[in-house]
Amino acid sequence: MEFDEKISRRNLIKGAAGIAGVAALTAGGLGLLSKAEAAPKGATLPYPYKKFTAAEIKEAGNIAHAAWFKGFCSYAALIGGVEMLRKKVGEPYTSFPVELTTFAHGGTSGWGGTCGTLIGAGVLSSLCAGPKIGEAINNEVINFYATSALPIFVPDHPKAQIKTTSTSDSPLCHLSVGKWMKKEGVGFLSPQQMDRCGRLAADMCMKTLEYLNLWADGKFEPKTKAPVFANEIPSQNNCTECHGSNIPKTSGPFGTGLDLLKGGH
Amino acid sequence: MEFDEKISRRNLIKGAAGIAGVAALTAGGLGLLSKAEAAPKGATLPYPYKKFTAAEIKEAGNIAHAAWFKGFCSYAALIGGVEMLRKKVGEPYTSFPVELTTFAHGGTSGWGGTCGTLIGAGVLSSLCAGPKIGEAINNEVINFYATSALPIFVPDHPKAQIKTTSTSDSPLCHLSVGKWMKKEGVGFLSPQQMDRCGRLAADMCMKTLEYLNLWADGKFEPKTKAPVFANEIPSQNNCTECHGSNIPKTSGPFGTGLDLLKGGH
Repeated sequence: MEFDEKISRRNLIKGAAGIAGVAALTAGGLGLLSKAEAAPKGATLPYPYKKFTAAEIKEAGNIAHAAWFKGFCSYAALIGGVEMLRKKVGEPYTSFPVELTTFAHGGTSGWGGTCGTLIGAGVLSSLCAGPKIGEAINNEVINFYATSALPIFVPDHPKAQIKTTSTSDSPLCHLSVGKWMKKEGVGFLSPQQMDRCGRLAADMCMKTLEYLNLWADGKFEPKTKAPVFANEIPSQNNCTECHGSNIPKTSGPFGTGLDLLKGGH
Repeated sequence: MEFDEKISRRNLIKGAAGIAGVAALTAGGLGLLSKAEAAPKGATLPYPYKKFTAAEIKEAGNIAHAAWFKGFCSYAALIGGVEMLRKKVGEPYTSFPVELTTFAHGGTSGWGGTCGTLIGAGVLSSLCAGPKIGEAINNEVINFYATSALPIFVPDHPKAQIKTTSTSDSPLCHLSVGKWMKKEGVGFLSPQQMDRCGRLAADMCMKTLEYLNLWADGKFEPKTKAPVFANEIPSQNNCTECHGSNIPKTSGPFGTGLDLLKGGH
């Protein structure tokens, strides 16, 4: 029960940024791959990272936008960074199978869950900064995604003109693209929707690279509290957008696991 | 606009299984990595696959369950397969950075979106069968996830005893773990919840391997229609579970993009 022992009240409070902190503790404490083991090249994260210039971040955005039309959102957000890193760094990015999260488009194989751009972006930050910092960066990128009027990026070669931006208030594909389509007055697989999603892939790729640059300079500070701490369950923070008056309580039977987090801090 | 040209009514209908079909068309038609290009070892999917025996599938399940306590759900579902494939096949699995989707736990960095087991499972099927078949397998695995009373797998070394199973009716972490915790009467990060999620990681890993075995035998037939075809937006199929009487129409302005799919089939 080594994991359970790690989840002591003291450690969780020290761990700070929510479940990201728990992951950090376990990844740091137990070691997913001990450095003492001789791991083959490519197996151990992070891969080498070289900071992007502003022009290179924009280039990554244009690559991501164009790539949406080849492999959709998750592939797009990932390849924007990886293609540049193949040029800037080479191996092990060159041998990295970048198509491995293509399935995550449309909220995972079209099921409307987590926006695929956030999966591609999370793989990018994990490759470059390792699973612990990669997740902390992804948490900030998701917060940016959920609270910003998107898309922001204007590609050099748009495939459609679009009129509107919208704020998803959610990391979910269904809510994000649904709200935007309603505002724009277009349907799914319309040229406008496809270009909008390509621009979002660019936005998430570029925001991830901005955070990676900060981290490379020793200036990345996690600011977004993972929602699990507020709600005692993995979740968004805006409960009433989905729930009516029947929101399950997170104290009482739902608080069992996180009672240890209450008081004292 | 090569992508747009691909989305003709004829091709979409031929493409069959929903947005998986669209992905198939683009992946097949345009080529994310042309075979004519000399791709470095590891970069091109699929990797070699060797069928698992029933005993090996169970072993993968036990690895996944145990791994939850080191890296949570997405890592667990993925390492269950990859660790076995490192033994059975070796490279390029040995050099594969298996921690790259650890961030996807808790519905992506704890935000309650797509269950991380489905992200890990999707990477596993994509690695072994490529992005096109990998997605079709992931679509079946998600359907299994959303419609089955889970968990099913009983690990050799459970870390907690659990009483109940529940059907999520959703690929979302928040709904899946929330419904189960309510039924079991426990909270998040309780020993029971953690063991339940470890068992779910095993279930999704093992189901993915079962489908990969079928595919290796030429017997994999996609049966689950991607929800986007029914709903004209990436989504679950049970709209009223979240929506009240205010379900946006998917015909009219929402049907624009998929009008081409109507009639004729």
